[in-house]
Amino acid sequence: MEKNFEGLLQDFQELVHKIKYYNEALAVIFWDLRTGAPKKGVPGRAKVIGMLSTEAFRLSTSQEMGDYLSYFEQKDNFSKLDPIYRAIIEECRKEYDRSKKIPEAMYKEYVILTSEAESVWEEAKNTDNFSMFSPYLEKIVDFNIKFIDLWGFKDNKYDTLLDYYEPGMTVEKLDRIFEQLRERIVPLVQKIKDSSYKPDDSMFFRNCYDTARQEEFSLMILDKMGYSFDAGRLDVSEHPFTIGMTPGDVRITTHYYPDNFSSALFSSIHEGGHALYEQNINIELEDTPLGTGTSMGIHESQSRFWENIIGRSYNFWSCYYEDLKKIFPEEFKSVSLEDFYKAINKVEPSLIRVEADEVTYNLHIMIRYEIEKALINKEVKVADLPRIWKEKMKEYLGIEPKNDKEGVLQDVHWAGGSFGYFPSYTLGNIYSAQIYHTLRKQFSNFDELIKKGELTKLKDWLGENIHRHGKLLTPAEILKSVTGEEINSGYLIDYLESKYKEIYNARLSIIAFVSGTAWKPPPTY
Amino acid sequence: MEKNFEGLLQDFQELVHKIKYYNEALAVIFWDLRTGAPKKGVPGRAKVIGMLSTEAFRLSTSQEMGDYLSYFEQKDNFSKLDPIYRAIIEECRKEYDRSKKIPEAMYKEYVILTSEAESVWEEAKNTDNFSMFSPYLEKIVDFNIKFIDLWGFKDNKYDTLLDYYEPGMTVEKLDRIFEQLRERIVPLVQKIKDSSYKPDDSMFFRNCYDTARQEEFSLMILDKMGYSFDAGRLDVSEHPFTIGMTPGDVRITTHYYPDNFSSALFSSIHEGGHALYEQNINIELEDTPLGTGTSMGIHESQSRFWENIIGRSYNFWSCYYEDLKKIFPEEFKSVSLEDFYKAINKVEPSLIRVEADEVTYNLHIMIRYEIEKALINKEVKVADLPRIWKEKMKEYLGIEPKNDKEGVLQDVHWAGGSFGYFPSYTLGNIYSAQIYHTLRKQFSNFDELIKKGELTKLKDWLGENIHRHGKLLTPAEILKSVTGEEINSGYLIDYLESKYKEIYNARLSIIAFVSGTAWKPPPTY
Repeated sequence: MEKNFEGLLQDFQELVHKIKYYNEALAVIFWDLRTGAPKKGVPGRAKVIGMLSTEAFRLSTSQEMGDYLSYFEQKDNFSKLDPIYRAIIEECRKEYDRSKKIPEAMYKEYVILTSEAESVWEEAKNTDNFSMFSPYLEKIVDFNIKFIDLWGFKDNKYDTLLDYYEPGMTVEKLDRIFEQLRERIVPLVQKIKDSSYKPDDSMFFRNCYDTARQEEFSLMILDKMGYSFDAGRLDVSEHPFTIGMTPGDVRITTHYYPDNFSSALFSSIHEGGHALYEQNINIELEDTPLGTGTSMGIHESQSRFWENIIGRSYNFWSCYYEDLKKIFPEEFKSVSLEDFYKAINKVEPSLIRVEADEVTYNLHIMIRYEIEKALINKEVKVADLPRIWKEKMKEYLGIEPKNDKEGVLQDVHWAGGSFGYFPSYTLGNIYSAQIYHTLRKQFSNFDELIKKGELTKLKDWLGENIHRHGKLLTPAEILKSVTGEEINSGYLIDYLESKYKEIYNARLSIIAFVSGTAWKPPPTY
Repeated sequence: MEKNFEGLLQDFQELVHKIKYYNEALAVIFWDLRTGAPKKGVPGRAKVIGMLSTEAFRLSTSQEMGDYLSYFEQKDNFSKLDPIYRAIIEECRKEYDRSKKIPEAMYKEYVILTSEAESVWEEAKNTDNFSMFSPYLEKIVDFNIKFIDLWGFKDNKYDTLLDYYEPGMTVEKLDRIFEQLRERIVPLVQKIKDSSYKPDDSMFFRNCYDTARQEEFSLMILDKMGYSFDAGRLDVSEHPFTIGMTPGDVRITTHYYPDNFSSALFSSIHEGGHALYEQNINIELEDTPLGTGTSMGIHESQSRFWENIIGRSYNFWSCYYEDLKKIFPEEFKSVSLEDFYKAINKVEPSLIRVEADEVTYNLHIMIRYEIEKALINKEVKVADLPRIWKEKMKEYLGIEPKNDKEGVLQDVHWAGGSFGYFPSYTLGNIYSAQIYHTLRKQFSNFDELIKKGELTKLKDWLGENIHRHGKLLTPAEILKSVTGEEINSGYLIDYLESKYKEIYNARLSIIAFVSGTAWKPPPTY
């Protein structure tokens, strides 16, 4: 190479930016397709997506990229890089190796397989026909095992998949974390199930919630959270999502149902949590692979912190329930704040993960984690999954699906080949409770802040301590710097037990009501 | 080259498609920026646009492209191509030569100059300071003259610029066409000016037109025209525009003003006319440079046909005025169909082109055409433009601007270097009247069709005879095949004279009113 260090660094930066710009264009197109692109334009647009993705992939696995990586990985050169560019080199290397180690023909075959599998899965689910989908799932599992052999692994093959979504996470750690969680969540769920008290949430399912007014309230709450509408927008799509193009353009979507009040509101807050992360990443990382969340788990911690810990807290609604009643005066006329609070926190073992409450949700994840781990390590057969699924549901949640449609066939993840992704959801819950614990120490007046609706103070703190780092720090580094600890599921369990014992302490609650004593909010943990 | 004809053709097709996909991605991003991209995302997005445009430009001027063109232009090879690929080769050659003949450094300088000039123009216009803008305009004119010298020209330097927007058009032809038009339009405008009758359109400017209801009516009319909402959508932007990504995705925008009823409605119909063109191009041309309108003039003929000839006709409103009154019952309670019809057809010499009516509009264009032609042929100096502008306004329209803001500085076109573009607008008017004349012969029950609102019959005919060809036929070929004639401004003049003599025949109109005889619609020409 003729150019010197500075010249090569500049060229490398240009290459990195170019890859980012392809991905940004793809993000705009993706958003457009999900929020209102005319349906007749969709088939044509797929070709554009194909071309742009191919170009971005080509650049990140190019000879040129390989040469830059080798050059900047040389000790002398690496030491001259600033911390940002060191991390970029490491990130690009990861992506480069991951892609280069799979023969192109094999990867193409896999892409076609998963694309077909997603269609087959959809039909299999609709017709409750697992045997239709199982040959595809077998092949997808086999491919993933082959990929792991090519990528390499240390202790457990599944570690390699975990690491992709949650860098540094291993089966050894996760087994321990989930074990601790299960030990206390299963009994908690059982107690709630046995409780004679059942919150009444039927008011949410009357067909009366005007969608324009739902939108008005979602917009208000997002604004209070500190979501910037100068750097984002809220739209409607079939399934809610967040997409970050740059910190200056992070869009969220939701879906309003006239006969389901809470769905759009909590998905807006959830996506708002994701979006605050992306909006507040250091602008210096904007055009690089570090300009996004550090892992799926940390990302999910942000969305779940806002959705559950803040958005389903008594203090939050003691601030905003009056605003909600102004927008839906008739609808909530006869619903007290207390009843509203309990209704949004109703816990009930149910079959479908995406509809589960914050307590039972984690058990749904564990079932999937255990199955994935066993599949990748060839300890179970695909054909046995329906049976295994039912057994685990019975064991953890005390209920079992009558069919596979509401069982093993409910999620799209496996059809798309996303093994290793599911644990992120529960990791997010665990992280969020740890962050919550830290925040309560940081803000001695935490309860007052929430009651007064001073949510942007939280946003600013999260921005400063988590968001701005983007992918510059690993999930474990972020967690350690924020909480001073490693991952610890104890905080999540403490939070859940404390909150739900109060809500489901039916006897106390009923006595209080009968004796005329005002219901008191739960002690804030 | 080792590959055979078929192999090379396939590679060339892939290259052509790839360029198209870049442009399609750019179109989505452009639309998004104009319709609601968060403002903080805009600076970042500019970099994405820069990268994608550069890639598309690089491909269309690549060595690879040059080699394919030389190969397929060889007589034996060319004769083996189907008519579509022959036209594609010619189109790519045009683009290739146009770009390759300009030295890269010179072109870059020009891009920077025009980009600066657009900002300077904006300030110059706002502060009414022509001398601030004139040094830029001088340089832009000089660049265009240099470009023409590099591109080559036959009779008149300005021909080369005209040909870019309207293939085949020349100064010789245009001088004759415009001369004929001016001879009859100037006296027509004078007569209208002298008429004691002035339609009252003040009802359009009351601040009472709810924008949601304006949208409802625009959507209804677009639907009646046959605009497919499965292949498009109507949004809001600062300035109305149409953008065609593929025939399956052609989007339009408008801008609603509560205190200007007719602006959004007629711009929706105008853009709808453009959109019908793009939606109905043969799907075989989709991913090629032929998948768009054949010229700016033919495109404008479609928008103006729908906006003026149909949308401002008495028959159209005798069909839809009742629907409008249902949406705006209070607003149009005391406005008769006749008064409404006359109000939307008010003619009045005015200073600003974009606000001009269909009669005076053409005079605004002629002034610009004459100035551009003289500039490119170095017959006038930039410094003299304010004076020349005022003289021509006085001569053609009988009024003159008090300042340059409402005169020579009003349009952005010259700052952006778009010389040769303006004539398209009047060519569109001329073509539209010729097409109208043909349609009246094709449909013996034309008036009945419009009165009954059977607009899709027109849409289908235009689709079959004009739209589907895309850029496969030249503007002259299209016009000939549709009307059997060359361009002929006589039809436009006949249409205008007939329509406006009736409207402005004030004496007759007043007498009819006084004597209680019902007002009659003008004879449809």
